[in-house]
Amino acid sequence: MDYQLSLERAADIAAVAGLLQIGTELGVDRILDSGDTFSAADLAKVADAPLEGVTEYLNALLAAGLVTDTGVTGQFRVSLDYPERRYEAGYVCWALTANNPFIENVREFLADRDSAARAYRRDSRRVAVSSRWIGDRGFYPDIIDKLNAAGVKRVVDLGAGAGGLLIRWLSQDSTRTGIALDISAAACAAAREAARQAGVDDRLEVVVRSIESLVDDSSQINGADAILASFVMHDIVQDAALSQAVLSSCRHALKPNGFMVVVDAVSYAQHVRERKFSALFTYVHASFMNVHLPPEQEWRTKFYIAGFSKVECVPQVVPGGRLFVAIP
Amino acid sequence: MDYQLSLERAADIAAVAGLLQIGTELGVDRILDSGDTFSAADLAKVADAPLEGVTEYLNALLAAGLVTDTGVTGQFRVSLDYPERRYEAGYVCWALTANNPFIENVREFLADRDSAARAYRRDSRRVAVSSRWIGDRGFYPDIIDKLNAAGVKRVVDLGAGAGGLLIRWLSQDSTRTGIALDISAAACAAAREAARQAGVDDRLEVVVRSIESLVDDSSQINGADAILASFVMHDIVQDAALSQAVLSSCRHALKPNGFMVVVDAVSYAQHVRERKFSALFTYVHASFMNVHLPPEQEWRTKFYIAGFSKVECVPQVVPGGRLFVAIP
Repeated sequence: MDYQLSLERAADIAAVAGLLQIGTELGVDRILDSGDTFSAADLAKVADAPLEGVTEYLNALLAAGLVTDTGVTGQFRVSLDYPERRYEAGYVCWALTANNPFIENVREFLADRDSAARAYRRDSRRVAVSSRWIGDRGFYPDIIDKLNAAGVKRVVDLGAGAGGLLIRWLSQDSTRTGIALDISAAACAAAREAARQAGVDDRLEVVVRSIESLVDDSSQINGADAILASFVMHDIVQDAALSQAVLSSCRHALKPNGFMVVVDAVSYAQHVRERKFSALFTYVHASFMNVHLPPEQEWRTKFYIAGFSKVECVPQVVPGGRLFVAIP
Repeated sequence: MDYQLSLERAADIAAVAGLLQIGTELGVDRILDSGDTFSAADLAKVADAPLEGVTEYLNALLAAGLVTDTGVTGQFRVSLDYPERRYEAGYVCWALTANNPFIENVREFLADRDSAARAYRRDSRRVAVSSRWIGDRGFYPDIIDKLNAAGVKRVVDLGAGAGGLLIRWLSQDSTRTGIALDISAAACAAAREAARQAGVDDRLEVVVRSIESLVDDSSQINGADAILASFVMHDIVQDAALSQAVLSSCRHALKPNGFMVVVDAVSYAQHVRERKFSALFTYVHASFMNVHLPPEQEWRTKFYIAGFSKVECVPQVVPGGRLFVAIP
């Protein structure tokens, strides 16, 4: 049988996920993900860990074919297919490692969800890293295509996390500016650091605040050409009044010809390409986080109720995801 | 692109692993893995969990296509491809969930392996279930083929875990008998229960003991037609004297024309089909459990030193695994 079609592809995907998750725990994902050349000593320094142990880890990456020699002794770089392998690992690390506190304690969630939810929380870094690995290839490109096609110059990203999407977009054109909002101070600190490393920190404003707060104060989003929100609206979507108020604030804040791009998940998508991941995503949000995802039509209706006049919906590469473009 | 070849296959594999791991935490894997029809109430009873929460979980399995209707209202069974999907999930659940205590604490292992190894242990049930899912399809069939081709009647399985391999083999022919040895009392209890359910408990002896103990007392393995050892010899292989003594005891215990079948892993296998999983497997054993896997030739040598006259080696479906047949 063709190896690409064989069931042992799962062993590859699992192994890469395990190895890359170990990398993020050591903090060396920053070097690996950068694509730059590096030495074992570079990894040990970033990890702040003993060189011997880090070298063993590097040897495993080499044996796995995730890292290769550069021709210069002691200098390495990730393999050509590393971005693809990391994208695949993103799904696995999100499903099992990021959600591990839920999965291991599912019995307690079933017995008493509210008290279990207080006791067992996900590690926000593990959620953010795996989500970024998925997003990098799963929906960032589609959003950036939309922004570029419209020629927009000023973008606000709601729930921007570590700012990966905006930083990529800003790096393409020095006349662009952006604002990244996120409720997590740690995510915002990571976004500032990443923007500095990418040399776009003078054009990216990073603000710690919730999307709910836009209802009372929309000054920071006023005049945006586009407002983005990736997998963050589902946190407030069950509160009809709140989600209407937030979307309405966004609509009013947009420049003429501006638009919103919302990427989010629908409940139990049934296409064969997406039904499995969508099932886990929907179940995890409902049973562990009390977030009940709307079906596609209900998402559309939310935009219309908030006063948008036109809503396009594109099925996303990310299984169960949809990209909505809402026009005032 | 052909969906089977697409990178989103990883999302499917990740999602199934997440859903099935939740099932094992609830204890409903026994029902799902049996292939029998079941109701939501059956699942709730086995899980000893509230019907409402178990029904939500069942709905996720249905949406994912892992479980289907039977035509009888409220009665369900797993999908036709469930065994294949579970096999794939086995790799993922082993890589990330079974190893999670290692992965999440890798920094501490790098700083001080011995004290970290005392503090962070894997959950033996999570290891056993994921290993069984892999083994069921990954190497049980090859071992059973060897046993059947030789027409053997009495088999001892060292490190038999929950007895899955022997129970399957015993179920094929009522003139066969077996002995399952395992150091874990919990695994032995599970093996007894599984043998009872399969109706082979009168032909399967289950004994709690270590493979090391065979050096001093080989009475229970004497007269076996075949002695099996799957992924257990690597625990003692670094102690040359001990592994020689155990293998030698096995050689002496075998009936004339008897043989040993050892399935185990080699260090950093480099074939493209196996290098990634073999890298994780090798790294996890070395860095977290201080188990340094031998290369293939060293495995062979161990059998010869213990007095076996002939050793065949077959690359296994399981990436990085090898099946050795050793003849006295």
